[in-house]
Amino acid sequence: MKRRDFIKKAGVAGVGGAAVASSLAAPAIAQERIEMAVVSTWPRDFPGLGTGAQRFAQRVSDMTDGRIQVQYFAAGERVGAFDAFDEVASGNAQAYHAADYYWKGKHPGWAYFTSVPFGLTYTEINAWIRFMGGQELWDELSSDFGLKCLMCGSTGVQMGGWFNKEINSADDLKGLKMRIPGLGGDVMAKLGASPVSLPGGQIYENLVSGAIDATEWVGPWNDYVMKFYEAAKYYYYPGMHEPGSMLAVGMNKSWWESLSPSDQLVIEAAASMENDVMMSEFNANNGTYLARLINEQGVELREFNDDIYDSFGEAAEEVFGEARAHSDLANRIHESFAAARADVGGWGNIAEVAYIRQRNRVLGV
Amino acid sequence: MKRRDFIKKAGVAGVGGAAVASSLAAPAIAQERIEMAVVSTWPRDFPGLGTGAQRFAQRVSDMTDGRIQVQYFAAGERVGAFDAFDEVASGNAQAYHAADYYWKGKHPGWAYFTSVPFGLTYTEINAWIRFMGGQELWDELSSDFGLKCLMCGSTGVQMGGWFNKEINSADDLKGLKMRIPGLGGDVMAKLGASPVSLPGGQIYENLVSGAIDATEWVGPWNDYVMKFYEAAKYYYYPGMHEPGSMLAVGMNKSWWESLSPSDQLVIEAAASMENDVMMSEFNANNGTYLARLINEQGVELREFNDDIYDSFGEAAEEVFGEARAHSDLANRIHESFAAARADVGGWGNIAEVAYIRQRNRVLGV
Repeated sequence: MKRRDFIKKAGVAGVGGAAVASSLAAPAIAQERIEMAVVSTWPRDFPGLGTGAQRFAQRVSDMTDGRIQVQYFAAGERVGAFDAFDEVASGNAQAYHAADYYWKGKHPGWAYFTSVPFGLTYTEINAWIRFMGGQELWDELSSDFGLKCLMCGSTGVQMGGWFNKEINSADDLKGLKMRIPGLGGDVMAKLGASPVSLPGGQIYENLVSGAIDATEWVGPWNDYVMKFYEAAKYYYYPGMHEPGSMLAVGMNKSWWESLSPSDQLVIEAAASMENDVMMSEFNANNGTYLARLINEQGVELREFNDDIYDSFGEAAEEVFGEARAHSDLANRIHESFAAARADVGGWGNIAEVAYIRQRNRVLGV
Repeated sequence: MKRRDFIKKAGVAGVGGAAVASSLAAPAIAQERIEMAVVSTWPRDFPGLGTGAQRFAQRVSDMTDGRIQVQYFAAGERVGAFDAFDEVASGNAQAYHAADYYWKGKHPGWAYFTSVPFGLTYTEINAWIRFMGGQELWDELSSDFGLKCLMCGSTGVQMGGWFNKEINSADDLKGLKMRIPGLGGDVMAKLGASPVSLPGGQIYENLVSGAIDATEWVGPWNDYVMKFYEAAKYYYYPGMHEPGSMLAVGMNKSWWESLSPSDQLVIEAAASMENDVMMSEFNANNGTYLARLINEQGVELREFNDDIYDSFGEAAEEVFGEARAHSDLANRIHESFAAARADVGGWGNIAEVAYIRQRNRVLGV
């Protein structure tokens, strides 16, 4: 018998303290306390990413009235941002909050569970993960590393990045040192740029010092906070590299499996709620902060042209080819992703795209 | 002292049954059982809407290991679909699952909390409700009726509807008896159609008998199940009337306020998860079922042209004018909605729209 089953069946026979409340005539449920240390890849209180991860941690605690005791550590408070994976896989901590593409060096499949070039938007990736085989493949991948991962936040479509010169063709990318992680960085490398992966807390100093020439981060709300406009004036859209970056809570698999089904569901619902809450917060703020960047900081908004998007597309196919060649699992992840993209992406032409085009045209939005 | 606080402080002093598990050395938490009857506006097991409502109910029960005992009643099993509101407002049941625009006869403000013509998509309405004043206005409205409402599902962008003739201009709508609820129905009335509100379970028979000439319902997945193709062959998009229909769990306010903060959060997270799960399920299925409708059933897909969208837009402004004139609260709801639409809708041009256009162009999706 599992310990939790025993506890449930044992019930409560007596209650100490003052007078017994009448409601306790019904059998009450006694459950053990559980400790959950969460290490994250974000600076403390960083808007959206950090505050969202903290909100998730607080929610798990609040939903269980403190029975699941969550301790949250921002990047560097317990381990460095990129050490979160090993900390959880080893069982030193129970969970991380991160963008899983940070682990693509361990397996290229991880990239697909944050975002890949020419990838899925927020609603598209949700459909893939929940109903089109995505979660099953994510489980297979993460299981190999002793982890169990769940969706827990999204930035939505990201901007293309900050540049200190205009980018009109792939030639303009040659030799550019750019902070851009995941497979998006590999696409840039195919086009002659030198991609660098840096955690959020280190980008600004590298951009100001000239150690990097360009960077992408997230979108107007987050990028305003990062003050990238002090070192680069051209702000490009739409980003080809992260069209709906899904953040993850990754848990030590043995710990996850030790939880009762109801506690697993509590954590899943808390993570799922954050998935939607964080996306909502980005959407509620990006428009306002884009206007501030342009009007207060003199940032110049630029749209990537069709030519460069065609170059991005060709390079992305090469990058995908390499990712697929890594292993059977990487290939299956790609194929499942690509099938979802064709299906839900095609539906998007009939739904969101057709509707927003008409609405915004009629209203002049 | 609130009863739940007393129970928490009283703790558990002894445990009956077999040997005491060692984990019980730590103080355990005993909580009272709570009954929650949910009446819905959907037929039992109806794909997406009904199954989503049932999934929400089951999730609340599972997250609390049955401590919140949820009984779910589909439309007609306890009260008729459109009687759900009164059943909950009166306290006979604790919650409903519905589209709140069904209650627009009680106050036009309700329409905004499902979807209105030229309204918000899924990600847009989430941003409005969570971070741009939407929930506060929804609380103010529902409070007047003794209710507390939360987001609990979405259909995404809906199709424009089923017609047995081509719709090329507003003239083609004159005299048309069409099932279309909410303010979308009012827009149709301005253009000379006769809108009818019918619950889902009664549409097919009315369309086949000719009692109505046209209908909208949801999208390809749901509409395939409804077999509307047997009585109408032209299937139009994009629907102007429901671009992201948010479903709601509406709870009796006194009951809601009697719950502990942690139980409130459990219900909120269960509802929030369903918000995202249901949307994902619609997106995962709509593309497949649209292909089936076209290829298996000979349905003809048609896009509303710019002319008719301009007519829809003019009529919608009139309808909004009437809704705003109803009351100060209706006007404030509209103004908050319209501000969110301009802000998040404008950001959408830079984000989803620009990205999906480029991606689908490059990939030929």
